[in-house]
Amino acid sequence: MKTETEMTLEIPGNNGAAQAAAVWLKENERLDELQRNGYRIIQNPEKFCFGMDAVLLTGFARAREEDTLLDMGTGTGIIPILMEAKYHCSHLTGLEIQADSADMASRSVALNGLSDKIDIVTGDIREAGSIFKSASFDCITCNPPYMIGKHGIANPEAPKAIARHEILCTFEDVAMQTAKLLKPGGHFFLVHRPFRLAEIMVTLTRCKLEPKRMQLVYPYVDKEPNMVLLETVRGGRPRMTVEKPLIIFREQGVYTPEIRDVYGY
Amino acid sequence: MKTETEMTLEIPGNNGAAQAAAVWLKENERLDELQRNGYRIIQNPEKFCFGMDAVLLTGFARAREEDTLLDMGTGTGIIPILMEAKYHCSHLTGLEIQADSADMASRSVALNGLSDKIDIVTGDIREAGSIFKSASFDCITCNPPYMIGKHGIANPEAPKAIARHEILCTFEDVAMQTAKLLKPGGHFFLVHRPFRLAEIMVTLTRCKLEPKRMQLVYPYVDKEPNMVLLETVRGGRPRMTVEKPLIIFREQGVYTPEIRDVYGY
Repeated sequence: MKTETEMTLEIPGNNGAAQAAAVWLKENERLDELQRNGYRIIQNPEKFCFGMDAVLLTGFARAREEDTLLDMGTGTGIIPILMEAKYHCSHLTGLEIQADSADMASRSVALNGLSDKIDIVTGDIREAGSIFKSASFDCITCNPPYMIGKHGIANPEAPKAIARHEILCTFEDVAMQTAKLLKPGGHFFLVHRPFRLAEIMVTLTRCKLEPKRMQLVYPYVDKEPNMVLLETVRGGRPRMTVEKPLIIFREQGVYTPEIRDVYGY
Repeated sequence: MKTETEMTLEIPGNNGAAQAAAVWLKENERLDELQRNGYRIIQNPEKFCFGMDAVLLTGFARAREEDTLLDMGTGTGIIPILMEAKYHCSHLTGLEIQADSADMASRSVALNGLSDKIDIVTGDIREAGSIFKSASFDCITCNPPYMIGKHGIANPEAPKAIARHEILCTFEDVAMQTAKLLKPGGHFFLVHRPFRLAEIMVTLTRCKLEPKRMQLVYPYVDKEPNMVLLETVRGGRPRMTVEKPLIIFREQGVYTPEIRDVYGY
């Protein structure tokens, strides 16, 4: 995925579109190409830009055209936009507590002509069970804050801190609300850090979100994994598949074919 | 590790030792070299021979010279013998319910001159908490039966069935007895199948055996893992390390250096 700043938004042979896109941007925001369906996303590098974890989650997740999907803590809407591009779900919703991020997400949705397909809702994950109808989603995705608490954070109100640390919600909040909102047999896809794997398994199982599929993401073949991708099924039976390792770099600076594929290169 | 049958037990330049070893063998039994300290092990291929899982567990486990160690369901004693070779623990015990296996284990211990170091006890894992003193071991190891129940087994009394299926004890039995017998802060090392990972994490956590270290074993770099190695600490805090992938074959028939190292080649 390439980065374009507002300054360099010259799309060859399509200057009209480039100028039209610039209208969507506010101060310090930039427009990034997603290499999927021609979709683009508005981000503000001073706040929070999506990372590889969100992209890998959409590569790991699966959905059907008839599915409804909710993304918990959607940030700038990267996951619903990529999931729409990949699976053409019938309807997608992104829930985001930070008004600035939700505003960027809404503008990206409109910019991509997806306003009929994707709703961005400003709201709190901890109240998701009352914002949406119970057992109403086929799929839920989440790229939650990974770090426990706000220990050592200078500014717990900063957008990056909120996205990375469990300041406004814990993993248990996410799992409990997901369990309420998912249809029986519905699928929950998440990405997290391996150091919390045991706790995550325990919380998911307690919420009747049975882990069914897992993949560990290793930066190199001889390094510790830095991400874990999980699929759980609401009310599923206890037996899971662990997939082949997902390795990011074949050598320094060179992605493996699997990663190039997820990124749409 | 090389296999020697009773017939071919001719150790070049050491016929006296070979003949002496033959005295230790019963019908259908064979003597295998362990490539560690010159240790050998008696096995009966019609009953059960140790597999790569037991060897990898001893490669993954860690112990100190002053530690006492218990191996739950020791079979022919492979794990205490290899752990003694590797870590010189102060004392090791193997608990085995099948009298024939325990008898082979005892003879292997004697054959290797380890009778002062290793006790083989014939008994039931489900009663381990009353056979041994509570909170008395620094380390416990287990290569338990992987398969749930005895569904589809022709002969549930066959030694191989008992070693592979949860006929005489469940994983919960193992975890509960381990939690009783381990000192606070003591270490439990196990190998299991990835398809049961979520259930294993839940059971261990419920027994206050906190998962602290995990490694997935992949037969090839592009294949699903077929084993998971776990270290838990009794009363540990919830935060774990997942290690780099352990890959068995670099290509067909060629072990990776990591596997050659574990096997002592």
